[in-house]
Amino acid sequence: MRLTKFVVPEIIFGNGALLEVGRAVIRLGGSRAMVVTDPGVVEAGWTKKVTQCLDEVDVPWSLWSALTPNPKDVEIDSGVKQYLQEHCDCLVAIGGGSVIDAAKAIGAVVVHGTRVHEFEGTDRVGHPLPPLVAIPTTAGTGADVSQFAVIVDTSRRSKMVMISKSFIPDICLSDPTTLMTKSAELTAYTGIDALTHAIEAYVSRAATPLTDGYALRAIRLVATSLRQSVASRSNSGAKESMMMASLQAGIAFSNAVLGAVHAMSHAIGGMLDLPHGLINGVLLPYVTEFNLLACPDRFRDVAEAFGEHIDHAHPMEAAEKSIRAIQRLCTDIGIPSRLRDLEIPRELIGEYASRAVQDPCLATNPRDMSHTDLLALFEAAW
Amino acid sequence: MRLTKFVVPEIIFGNGALLEVGRAVIRLGGSRAMVVTDPGVVEAGWTKKVTQCLDEVDVPWSLWSALTPNPKDVEIDSGVKQYLQEHCDCLVAIGGGSVIDAAKAIGAVVVHGTRVHEFEGTDRVGHPLPPLVAIPTTAGTGADVSQFAVIVDTSRRSKMVMISKSFIPDICLSDPTTLMTKSAELTAYTGIDALTHAIEAYVSRAATPLTDGYALRAIRLVATSLRQSVASRSNSGAKESMMMASLQAGIAFSNAVLGAVHAMSHAIGGMLDLPHGLINGVLLPYVTEFNLLACPDRFRDVAEAFGEHIDHAHPMEAAEKSIRAIQRLCTDIGIPSRLRDLEIPRELIGEYASRAVQDPCLATNPRDMSHTDLLALFEAAW
Repeated sequence: MRLTKFVVPEIIFGNGALLEVGRAVIRLGGSRAMVVTDPGVVEAGWTKKVTQCLDEVDVPWSLWSALTPNPKDVEIDSGVKQYLQEHCDCLVAIGGGSVIDAAKAIGAVVVHGTRVHEFEGTDRVGHPLPPLVAIPTTAGTGADVSQFAVIVDTSRRSKMVMISKSFIPDICLSDPTTLMTKSAELTAYTGIDALTHAIEAYVSRAATPLTDGYALRAIRLVATSLRQSVASRSNSGAKESMMMASLQAGIAFSNAVLGAVHAMSHAIGGMLDLPHGLINGVLLPYVTEFNLLACPDRFRDVAEAFGEHIDHAHPMEAAEKSIRAIQRLCTDIGIPSRLRDLEIPRELIGEYASRAVQDPCLATNPRDMSHTDLLALFEAAW
Repeated sequence: MRLTKFVVPEIIFGNGALLEVGRAVIRLGGSRAMVVTDPGVVEAGWTKKVTQCLDEVDVPWSLWSALTPNPKDVEIDSGVKQYLQEHCDCLVAIGGGSVIDAAKAIGAVVVHGTRVHEFEGTDRVGHPLPPLVAIPTTAGTGADVSQFAVIVDTSRRSKMVMISKSFIPDICLSDPTTLMTKSAELTAYTGIDALTHAIEAYVSRAATPLTDGYALRAIRLVATSLRQSVASRSNSGAKESMMMASLQAGIAFSNAVLGAVHAMSHAIGGMLDLPHGLINGVLLPYVTEFNLLACPDRFRDVAEAFGEHIDHAHPMEAAEKSIRAIQRLCTDIGIPSRLRDLEIPRELIGEYASRAVQDPCLATNPRDMSHTDLLALFEAAW
């Protein structure tokens, strides 16, 4: 019996959770905060709410929003410079996965004094980060609770996947109201990202009884709420369900790790600046079909969580229903079915496969996957 | 929508998790450990394993085992004295709920310099405790992951229930092998305690989507493993299942709080030195019957988790199946059905009711419960 490790940050969930940020920073001993965010979140007004809360508890702050989706190493350098110049001693990240990952990377660099590239891989962060409060504004990332951070190495045009317990934020403030300003497209992409986290965590080789329940519950919530959340910005019930789905999927994958969808998606995403959730959504049905053989009973549970009727069918037939449920959901919310629809060049498939085979997420994929398998999967999905 | 708060310690689960204690203490910055334990755990050899691990990492330790089941305020005083005399800076608790609660109380007292009585009630612990590693040796307490500690005030002959986030251990090492030396009686009592935690957390007014899955899963594990665990010390599968049940029930109740069974049990347990789980087991069916009205759908889920066949029966009929399932399990493992069987004096029932009505666990009981209701319930259970 292997040892199971399970770590989650302190979580405050609910409409208005964002307003706890001042108390959270004070509790963590922060006295000068760097607020990490992005232009879209600033424009939507959420960053202002955070800085007002910090003003109320007399915590000075320095705003940094000079990052792009799929945050780049050079952007981290500029964030680190500002953190040090402004003598900050804690981080507040409000935004999607890019923002939260950037805050994690800045925290690691300021503590260790090395470049962010040093942290690529598993358990490469030696010291605890400065106190970090994470406030997710997309229901999908999971970065608000996870030990993962992904930063683009611009010289290699490659996504660096960094996994360390030190990357788990101290406090996660998960506030569904922040979802009400998101576009339908972003809602769809991040929602499918949450679904991918949940499915990959549930079938992962590192899944445990402490992660399984969250993974299945997240799938159920996505199955019953993502369509409604894409359809309406003001459906508060759907927003709450999707925020909870993202949270539970995040706890699950942070502790059970991921699989081939993420390994393949990181490979493409390092070279092409496409939305991470969109690439995941295209790849998910293909990888699921490939993986069925490894654990049909688990995929049967996935199908059941989608609400599929499972009778006394053959195990593989029951498992196959998960593929159809995923495809139907993706089609309904406008996720294309092939990589070519994202204008991803076919001639780079060899390069994608070479990168994916080295991704740390591949180790926990339930079915063994060789370079040849990856080539065939990229071809099939193209 | 109210805000949901969720906090759990870092958890390492599995056979051999105990052997991580040296690394855990080092990681938390401890340099001189007070090992809190009890004579039974010492005799079983588990304490020795812990001190050997501390020796291996060159962390000096001071052993303290001068406590009794249902730990007393005067015992805490002696533990505090030893902690200060020996200049300890961290705590390792190995034992059941009494041991872990005693370690929490010692930690709070050494940090605050006041008597333990100051912490009675909710959120009365102002400062963080010294680093605490908890190693449960009974599959029931949940103290290894919870924000609860219960200490007897000997002058009032009353259990002081103390609830604070500061009481959550830093690291929980949950090792099923430690269960293999327990008597059948202790296995039964602590197993029913885990079941009570799970049921009270699931029907609690403070239950959340982050606690529900763990509560139901714990009920399922108890229903399928407790009989086997009572029957055999060497059934490693049953021990693993019960340790996981205790862990998941602990996470659930720490965040969703408890209900009337615990309020009533604390009232009796303060006056009579009886096993906590045993009192819970006698009371659980009576309180369940009283509570059904408040949330029949939830008790239907409890019945289903017990493996009861639920057809399209009336909601209350489905819910009632939970009572029969609990009674059957209690009977099978030798838990008596009435308080008089524990030689609890009937003339103290008025006093029990007066105490129970003030217990912090009563606030989250799903059905309103007056002093009169409590009197009637104690009478019925007597």
